[in-house]
Amino acid sequence: MKGAWLENGRIAYRDDLAEPVPMAGEALVRVRLAGICGTDLQLLNGYYPFTGIPGHEFVGEVVDAPDDPAWRGRRVVGEINITCGTCRQCRAERPSHCDKRCVLGIKNRDGAFAEFLTLPTANLHPVPDTVSDHAAVFAEPLAAALQVTRQVQIQPGDSVLVIGAGRLGQLTAQALRTTGCNLTVAARYPAQRELLIARGITVIHEQQIPDHALDVVVEATGSRAGLETALRAVRPRGTVVLKTTCSGQTTADLSRLVVNEITLVGSRCGPFPPALDLLERERVEPAGLVQARYAIHQAAAAFNAAAAKGALKVLFQF
Amino acid sequence: MKGAWLENGRIAYRDDLAEPVPMAGEALVRVRLAGICGTDLQLLNGYYPFTGIPGHEFVGEVVDAPDDPAWRGRRVVGEINITCGTCRQCRAERPSHCDKRCVLGIKNRDGAFAEFLTLPTANLHPVPDTVSDHAAVFAEPLAAALQVTRQVQIQPGDSVLVIGAGRLGQLTAQALRTTGCNLTVAARYPAQRELLIARGITVIHEQQIPDHALDVVVEATGSRAGLETALRAVRPRGTVVLKTTCSGQTTADLSRLVVNEITLVGSRCGPFPPALDLLERERVEPAGLVQARYAIHQAAAAFNAAAAKGALKVLFQF
Repeated sequence: MKGAWLENGRIAYRDDLAEPVPMAGEALVRVRLAGICGTDLQLLNGYYPFTGIPGHEFVGEVVDAPDDPAWRGRRVVGEINITCGTCRQCRAERPSHCDKRCVLGIKNRDGAFAEFLTLPTANLHPVPDTVSDHAAVFAEPLAAALQVTRQVQIQPGDSVLVIGAGRLGQLTAQALRTTGCNLTVAARYPAQRELLIARGITVIHEQQIPDHALDVVVEATGSRAGLETALRAVRPRGTVVLKTTCSGQTTADLSRLVVNEITLVGSRCGPFPPALDLLERERVEPAGLVQARYAIHQAAAAFNAAAAKGALKVLFQF
Repeated sequence: MKGAWLENGRIAYRDDLAEPVPMAGEALVRVRLAGICGTDLQLLNGYYPFTGIPGHEFVGEVVDAPDDPAWRGRRVVGEINITCGTCRQCRAERPSHCDKRCVLGIKNRDGAFAEFLTLPTANLHPVPDTVSDHAAVFAEPLAAALQVTRQVQIQPGDSVLVIGAGRLGQLTAQALRTTGCNLTVAARYPAQRELLIARGITVIHEQQIPDHALDVVVEATGSRAGLETALRAVRPRGTVVLKTTCSGQTTADLSRLVVNEITLVGSRCGPFPPALDLLERERVEPAGLVQARYAIHQAAAAFNAAAAKGALKVLFQF
């Protein structure tokens, strides 16, 4: 089959990839759309030593599910952690932290930048008929954005700042807007700002971020410097949610965290059902975030486009 | 009066200091005992640019309280943040984060390493008769230790690790032991280990700290490297409480925090009433932590003793 192959920090198109075969409990999914995420770009930079087919944001159609044929023909999105079900994390109801997990397109599991992928049917979620492919492909990153609302109790009237208005920042802003909080987004690039303003979201420049003022700050810059900015912006006893995963070491003045008694929360994958619900009710409308679509044989060009400063969502269309 | 004077990173004994005069709402307190804290040592290292009389852990006797004479003659301990009562932090019930606060012996306010200090009577807490001076002088650092239990809901059976068994680590261990949690302390020095073992607390070496295992880790090492150890020890979605304030920048692999969805909580001053309660009921017995007592004219020697590796509590006795 055709797909993108990551090896030694380089991405290349190949047409000789073996079509995956569903194991017990798994489905074979034909990918319709797949999105390039910041983590995919980090993989190229050596964030995690992955060799194989990357990609973990997708919408597709089940073409085979030997153990559960009812899935056949269904349009689906899928959770990306393939878990063992028996380790201490799985038993403690933290399956996304399974000690032995494989992660679609990230760790020990080929991903979505190919014509087909396999996933356990337990990972799949049917896409409501009214949700387009171009919205459904955002289910995974929107779930990650919603993880913020699972970890931090955001209440109507809370002052919340999202720093960074790229792919994840935009989705996080749309997701947080549903909570009734007093939301502001610090956005750097004109196209990012326009998208937010069009949705009625208050936008400021980074230089306008106030000191020690916000109840909650979500750091979604994708860059190491974002943490320092967030620690300065949050009020005493406020909460900073860290979404950026950078390879290597981050340096910050953590005495500020202690003196101001700040809570810093690391945040990763999130819940699909509320993501699909928000898409179905059009409370979040991500289609405007699509910057470009590429065919899979243009894999290298697609990655270059996604890596450009201020880039929004780049999709592979199959 | 006699006292210790901090200036340009040096501590010196002086006998020509002006006796402080209580302002409106304040009391004049004759210091009986005062303890040297890690923060005092950090002040010498330039953590905060303070010139004056350091010291914020004390027990003393009120000798004058012009606006509230009922305080006269009472044995007291005192909260160290002198607050404005009107700023946004005070109004939001975070007085210890008052925007305009002075901090006893740390910021814009002479402290306890002298014969007399002044504090607002609102900051004072009477010491129960059955609590000795040598226990009461630990009220402030014990309150800081108890702040952990205010910020993190620690439940019976939770696995909790304290890293570091110096002054604050010992008090934190004793305080956490009252919660019914499954407590372990990583201690480096024999004297520290013996004190814990004598109280029936499980002690391990740093090399024995397990990976990704603890529900809660309290970092009380006083050193920058403690954070990295704590982030490795805590389980996914667990909590690390950071007690160490180091001057300058701390470097850590924060992608671990994001991937494992760790919550990092900065923790500073805490509540005096439960500290005095634990001392009165002898649930915490800090007197064994006193390593040495010095007269104030031996200020430099006392600071040297407190700065020695593995040192426990060094007191000034007046």
